[in-house]
Amino acid sequence: MSIHTASTLQGVLSPVLTPFGADLEPDAGRLVRQCGWLMDNNVGLALFGTNSEANSLSVAERKMLLEEVVGSGLAPSRMMPGTSTCNLPETIDLTAHAVRSGVAGVLMLPPFYYKGMSDDGLFDYFARVIEGVADQRLRIYLYHIPPVSQVPISCALIGRLLEAYPGIIKGAKDSGGDWSNMEEMQRNFGADGFEVFAGAETFLLQNMRAGGAGCISATANVNPAAIAALHKNWRDDGADEAQASLNKVRTTFAAYPMIPAMKAAVARWSNDPTWSAVRPPLVALDADQQSDLFADLDAIGFSMPGLGEIAND
Amino acid sequence: MSIHTASTLQGVLSPVLTPFGADLEPDAGRLVRQCGWLMDNNVGLALFGTNSEANSLSVAERKMLLEEVVGSGLAPSRMMPGTSTCNLPETIDLTAHAVRSGVAGVLMLPPFYYKGMSDDGLFDYFARVIEGVADQRLRIYLYHIPPVSQVPISCALIGRLLEAYPGIIKGAKDSGGDWSNMEEMQRNFGADGFEVFAGAETFLLQNMRAGGAGCISATANVNPAAIAALHKNWRDDGADEAQASLNKVRTTFAAYPMIPAMKAAVARWSNDPTWSAVRPPLVALDADQQSDLFADLDAIGFSMPGLGEIAND
Repeated sequence: MSIHTASTLQGVLSPVLTPFGADLEPDAGRLVRQCGWLMDNNVGLALFGTNSEANSLSVAERKMLLEEVVGSGLAPSRMMPGTSTCNLPETIDLTAHAVRSGVAGVLMLPPFYYKGMSDDGLFDYFARVIEGVADQRLRIYLYHIPPVSQVPISCALIGRLLEAYPGIIKGAKDSGGDWSNMEEMQRNFGADGFEVFAGAETFLLQNMRAGGAGCISATANVNPAAIAALHKNWRDDGADEAQASLNKVRTTFAAYPMIPAMKAAVARWSNDPTWSAVRPPLVALDADQQSDLFADLDAIGFSMPGLGEIAND
Repeated sequence: MSIHTASTLQGVLSPVLTPFGADLEPDAGRLVRQCGWLMDNNVGLALFGTNSEANSLSVAERKMLLEEVVGSGLAPSRMMPGTSTCNLPETIDLTAHAVRSGVAGVLMLPPFYYKGMSDDGLFDYFARVIEGVADQRLRIYLYHIPPVSQVPISCALIGRLLEAYPGIIKGAKDSGGDWSNMEEMQRNFGADGFEVFAGAETFLLQNMRAGGAGCISATANVNPAAIAALHKNWRDDGADEAQASLNKVRTTFAAYPMIPAMKAAVARWSNDPTWSAVRPPLVALDADQQSDLFADLDAIGFSMPGLGEIAND
């Protein structure tokens, strides 16, 4: 495959929320149903992202859940699981496992415990992951999310990795919230087939106009069809209005802790209160927050069509 | 055991450097020898701390190394391994494993991926670890290191945990570098038998004078005897001079990336160049840095007596 070939991941992906039982054990059955609903709404599966509470899951749990989702028959060509940890052996293990599962790509954080690391150290880390996995099917999307990881992925580092591993380094998710950085990635590397995904749909239209690949956004968990529609129709006349409409939903959720708020919405529209459960250090919305959120969502006419039917299969 | 009973951990502990082979696999034999040398120099073993590159090790590697160190016959009453990860199942697994190994206590970071978490979420996390381990022998030392983890452990959180789990919450390591916070911990909780360890020997004398338990310090890897001597003799006339002398060594190492610099020193005095290896994202000193460091150490008359003999057993 040429390094310039567009991946099957372009478009909109959701960092899929991970459902837990009341005992906080992950629930593969409900995850598979949720993934099916997302795919039905034209959204791909960036399983095990920040919004998936991936770093609150063990390596064994992440493998088990991926096996269940792939085993359910959903298309791995639309999957980009996160496979990072802070250490090489577990990151290599998770990444090799994902590649063997047939996923189109993996999303990878830098090692995020130590701060202020040099590009030399980060380059060496990614190089050892790639050489440890040793599988030409590997496609890595670098995950730049400095507000959370506190370890940025610079354009200089991307350039070095692209030069050393063309074809394997395939793109990035930029959750830094700074458009100029996404634009710089696109300008520097887009011509080489490097796929830039905005980390929030608020940048989707801007990113498509700049030649980007789409977005991987928290809110794609709750508003998938509309976000996917803007990706499809970004050249249309109504695109700016569609973007404004997406932003309104995003802003409503972002007024609350995002992950618990999105889980509360899934719980409501799937008639499954257990969906509200989060693993600590996250905290579920309290009753007041939840009723405020639901009132805010009702006020903008938000709903999650089809979720109740699928969840009650 | 009363919650007011002093632990066997009081004094000086080293976050033991983890030796790797040229292939970056951890080397249990060299770790055991290093631990023996530290214990011979009156320093306890805070294995798997920040300076141990613990978060660059897999769960399996950490268990294997602890089993080898305990199995070597060194006293678990002087061991406080770090057992934290970002997720509950692996943290419970590592902690239960350490308790079963007989160690006197464990050092525990908060979950450090998500930032800006509430005390409610952090309390719930530690509570679930304690209830998951379900072993009355468990003694937890909370690890406050905001410059690296970016997730502080507030005195308010410590107070809540102490009230809920007296006897199990046993102390803290404060690597925040802010004396007023250590002093506040000591003043608020010291009377309840809560043991405050300074995160650097630069605060050792101050901490002992305030009633603290000692220190757990990077530099105890390279300067153990002198630091332990100040802990023993802190009431003596020469204590301030001894503290100043410790600070000189610390400052010399701190002019370089600390972990690679300490590993370079161990490599030099044990005649074992492989000791210099670090896992990425850390980077070993380059040749210029190393010769500058060695010149600086020679200029202050620093050496690591006895290390060569032990390493060449």
